[in-house]
Amino acid sequence: MTLRRMQPLPIRDVTIDDGFWGPRQALVRDTVIPYQWQAMNDEIRGAEPSRTVENFRIAAGESQDEYYGQVFQDSDLAKWLEAVGYALSVKRDEELERIADGVVDLLGRAQRPDGYLNTYFTVAKPGRKWTNLRDDHELYCAGHLIEAGVSYYEATGKRKALDIMTRYADHIVATFGTEPGQIRGYDGHPEIELALVRLYRATGDERYLKLSRFFVEERGRQPSFFDQEEAQRTEHRVARRQPDYFQAHLPVREQKTAEGHSVRALYLFSALTDLAAEYGDGELLETSRELWRNVTRKRMYITGGVGSNEYWESFTIDYDLPNDRAYAETCAAISLMFWASRLLQLEADGEYADVMERALYNGILSGMSLDGKRYFYVNPLEVWPEACRIREDLRSVATTRQAWFGCACCPPNIARLIASLGQYIYSYDEDGRQWFVHLYIGGEARQTIDNRRARLTQRSAYPWDGHIRLSVDTESPADFTIALRVPGWCRGAMCKVNGESVDLPRHKVKGYLRIRRIWTAGDEIELILPMAVEKVRANPKVRANAGKLALQRGPIVYCLEETDNGGGLHDIRIPDASEFAARFEEHLLEGVVVLRGDALRAKETPGEDDLYAMSPRPAEPAKVTAVPYYAWANREPGEMLVWLQEQRS
Amino acid sequence: MTLRRMQPLPIRDVTIDDGFWGPRQALVRDTVIPYQWQAMNDEIRGAEPSRTVENFRIAAGESQDEYYGQVFQDSDLAKWLEAVGYALSVKRDEELERIADGVVDLLGRAQRPDGYLNTYFTVAKPGRKWTNLRDDHELYCAGHLIEAGVSYYEATGKRKALDIMTRYADHIVATFGTEPGQIRGYDGHPEIELALVRLYRATGDERYLKLSRFFVEERGRQPSFFDQEEAQRTEHRVARRQPDYFQAHLPVREQKTAEGHSVRALYLFSALTDLAAEYGDGELLETSRELWRNVTRKRMYITGGVGSNEYWESFTIDYDLPNDRAYAETCAAISLMFWASRLLQLEADGEYADVMERALYNGILSGMSLDGKRYFYVNPLEVWPEACRIREDLRSVATTRQAWFGCACCPPNIARLIASLGQYIYSYDEDGRQWFVHLYIGGEARQTIDNRRARLTQRSAYPWDGHIRLSVDTESPADFTIALRVPGWCRGAMCKVNGESVDLPRHKVKGYLRIRRIWTAGDEIELILPMAVEKVRANPKVRANAGKLALQRGPIVYCLEETDNGGGLHDIRIPDASEFAARFEEHLLEGVVVLRGDALRAKETPGEDDLYAMSPRPAEPAKVTAVPYYAWANREPGEMLVWLQEQRS
Repeated sequence: MTLRRMQPLPIRDVTIDDGFWGPRQALVRDTVIPYQWQAMNDEIRGAEPSRTVENFRIAAGESQDEYYGQVFQDSDLAKWLEAVGYALSVKRDEELERIADGVVDLLGRAQRPDGYLNTYFTVAKPGRKWTNLRDDHELYCAGHLIEAGVSYYEATGKRKALDIMTRYADHIVATFGTEPGQIRGYDGHPEIELALVRLYRATGDERYLKLSRFFVEERGRQPSFFDQEEAQRTEHRVARRQPDYFQAHLPVREQKTAEGHSVRALYLFSALTDLAAEYGDGELLETSRELWRNVTRKRMYITGGVGSNEYWESFTIDYDLPNDRAYAETCAAISLMFWASRLLQLEADGEYADVMERALYNGILSGMSLDGKRYFYVNPLEVWPEACRIREDLRSVATTRQAWFGCACCPPNIARLIASLGQYIYSYDEDGRQWFVHLYIGGEARQTIDNRRARLTQRSAYPWDGHIRLSVDTESPADFTIALRVPGWCRGAMCKVNGESVDLPRHKVKGYLRIRRIWTAGDEIELILPMAVEKVRANPKVRANAGKLALQRGPIVYCLEETDNGGGLHDIRIPDASEFAARFEEHLLEGVVVLRGDALRAKETPGEDDLYAMSPRPAEPAKVTAVPYYAWANREPGEMLVWLQEQRS
Repeated sequence: MTLRRMQPLPIRDVTIDDGFWGPRQALVRDTVIPYQWQAMNDEIRGAEPSRTVENFRIAAGESQDEYYGQVFQDSDLAKWLEAVGYALSVKRDEELERIADGVVDLLGRAQRPDGYLNTYFTVAKPGRKWTNLRDDHELYCAGHLIEAGVSYYEATGKRKALDIMTRYADHIVATFGTEPGQIRGYDGHPEIELALVRLYRATGDERYLKLSRFFVEERGRQPSFFDQEEAQRTEHRVARRQPDYFQAHLPVREQKTAEGHSVRALYLFSALTDLAAEYGDGELLETSRELWRNVTRKRMYITGGVGSNEYWESFTIDYDLPNDRAYAETCAAISLMFWASRLLQLEADGEYADVMERALYNGILSGMSLDGKRYFYVNPLEVWPEACRIREDLRSVATTRQAWFGCACCPPNIARLIASLGQYIYSYDEDGRQWFVHLYIGGEARQTIDNRRARLTQRSAYPWDGHIRLSVDTESPADFTIALRVPGWCRGAMCKVNGESVDLPRHKVKGYLRIRRIWTAGDEIELILPMAVEKVRANPKVRANAGKLALQRGPIVYCLEETDNGGGLHDIRIPDASEFAARFEEHLLEGVVVLRGDALRAKETPGEDDLYAMSPRPAEPAKVTAVPYYAWANREPGEMLVWLQEQRS
């Protein structure tokens, strides 16, 4: 028995034609993917070394070099190939496909006769495979390779990549389990779990699904697999970490709060949501829901960033969300979107889509520069560059994006996310009779409903304007429901169908306006989502944001930058009555809505340099300019601030 | 030529008889000094090991044990002996003197025939002395031993300790300098410099003064002594630190900002102020002044704590004063008081005394529990215990005071400070014709003016009440000036002499009310320093305190504790019009003035658990109770907060 769930409309049935995302998808295809290919081949001057591709050549016996990089270096190429698959699903590209085919061939040559495929162990640690699952990311890399194989197969129809990965997966199926001679364990970094579900869905082979469940169920059991594994090892490279770093402190079903390394946690939670769906496992779904509430109601930045601790890249405790020391790894926001999307298919609740959108437009997009060539690994919400240079507790905060990283997980992750964006926009249910629109991204979506082709076309200037037009095209009139998401940030949404108002409160269910009718070609829906500039306050339990507000308009969280406002952003006070004007500026930051409003700032008093004074410091009116958070650090380096002092009257 | 300076009235001429400090001096004498003696003999159950005394026994050949502890373990015993000297100056105590005489004898037996006296090198590193001045604290320990010798000699008149130390100092004089065969270098941790000035003042031997100047002038010169020394070493124990950690990044006269390890910096600045005075060196004085302005106007907490960075226990950059990650080592506040007092003797400016008082009543006193048996090394201004337990960037923040430390510099430092407090209260100038009162601490001060004995008696309930009575007693009428400090925190001070008002604005010079007249026995001065509850604001450039205020009354900085106010202190807002009532509570925290006032707090809204909301969170009135910062963490552990949100209207 499976749980009833919606299906995401796949990339091939969605065409993105959107002023905001169209150029970004093109950027990923035309710039980011080629750039990352160069980076992995060490052709980017001044970037950190990668050597990812070379490692595979060595494993294939075609180079005599030494292995270089992280133990999980293979995953960079895997995520890149996965992104290529999505990009080719969107638009065929012969040259790119030729390069990718070459990569697939290389993977094939690097694969061992028994199906095993990992360059680190093949080259650097022969004879040691599967001996340190806790630290060595072996199944993690396998998971990314499997996802790449599925993606490339689905995009091109070519079986070779998929065949390589099923051979590898078969090897893993044979290696892990409870039978004598099998390893009863799991990887320190979850990923294989969700990859195996994808492989099952692509192939129908239930062994992969069962193995995924095995990995999830074993995790956190006593006696601890990691302890047993360690007792058998003679080599100890990695400092001992607490079991919750790996989400192995408790059996997964008993976990109520998100602990440890944030990306690991959210990959695991994504996988267990998949398993809940496939096995109709309500308990597992409730576990996922409870963890979701913990993360999104107590441990998430307004940007959708998660993991507030640089140390171990981890979650900490409820409401501990410092802005200057935010870790909020780009990959963690991406994995939050993965998880949100999976829960959303199981429950058509706008809460999940709201978080997905929050992460997408803010904490994910901030990870990449506008030109696609520089990346943030860490996404703070407050930056004082001078302090970042000297304070050890801010050592991980880069104040400008970097060309590449020694640990380059984030750049290819953001590339694959943007390339695959099409699959997050729509879902269908009941053979298409429910058609959900989760994200407002212009373009076209295609389905077959009762054997009739149907098409939905979106047009808007989202995220800058909430006026959305959808037009329906069907071969012949058809009875189905179009469910339009009414974002949580929106007040006063309105909707018309063919010019007639829809009673929105009456038809809104869990954040979706459900319009059922006999749809006919030429039907027009007009959805108006007013985008007021909102002053957002955090829960009073969030210490870092006490007395502060953040500006948000539509899904976009704003920040102040020094280049627009001068230094000392912390001192700016926003009166609660201050009105902000929103204006689209075509030539700024590749076109953004800028917010301008009135504020107060300390008055510079020459000679007045007391550190502590007994009278209030004089203030004077000032104008402030806010830009989208995702676009910060694309101009002159300097301070940045999301949460601003509020002056309440 | 020396610079004209006041002389502090020495401990032997001052009797403290004060409701606040009297019991604290008694505590140091009767409890802290015996307790620390036990700690250094490893007789405190559950405290960190010390083995300080044992190390000296081993060096004396009376034990076969192995050396234990920090390279600077000797300095703990030195500071303890120095404190004993002060305590005995205040009040003779045969039993204590017997123990201390035993320590002096032990020092003598541990001393090498050439005068050298350091147990670490004698026991653990024979043949390696003076080979790593940068890291091994050898001259630092010598400095503390010398200070101890001077203190004990001045207290008891017994020459033995002084003789041991002059022999050691003579050995150092022979070892260091620019002559062939001498080491042209200086210690990584300044201290010897100020100790040598003290030894010069106690003995009149100018070689010590010259050596002090040599150490100060060599520091930071190029080529770097530390680099040269390192090049000659084969053993490297300590991670390479930047030269500014040791204040060796520039010649001392070129240093304009306080850099590196805060205690080192302030010991150095104290010494260079001494040297400026002794040599009449105006340039050196101006260097000290400029550094003073940098520290006290840009890098000092409201508590007088300095050094805002746990990493390397260091200064960072101007206005970088985070409250939760404040390091503010107790020793650093103590050294700020040392430096302030030295500058004050050179310039009778209340600014120095204000800082001295700020450090004394807040950031120093917070270092010790009310019972004298537990200590803070780090003095944060904001504590959230749950976060301290999990966040690596808060790892140095103890949320309760500790019984002892592996690096136990602070406990004996606070003991010697309190024991020697008498010498910070008064200064005299022009053979007593100027008599300055810096601190309002009850008791008696004695001088001889024109061969006539004069006595000044102070009575007050300071720091809880600013009504101070001073009575003058002279053998016969005498013409001199009494200069009373009008603290910078005070508004509306008034003064009467024998019931007649003094025109305070007219007679106030740089923070001191100078009253010159023919003083006669029985003359009475009444000084009224109104102690309003002040709302203090930080300079707008201090990011951590933007939109916040701190409560101060008289010299006392206040804080909120969870035990009085419940958890979530960050969320408390103080309306700018809120009036705080001050009330002395005899039985609370051994008698403190408590502040109570009105505030606002978030209203608990059941079920309202959104992390981010678009409307202001409802607030409700609340009462808050503030206690003196120095007394925090003497009851149930919990949150603590100094800087509170201000609600401006």
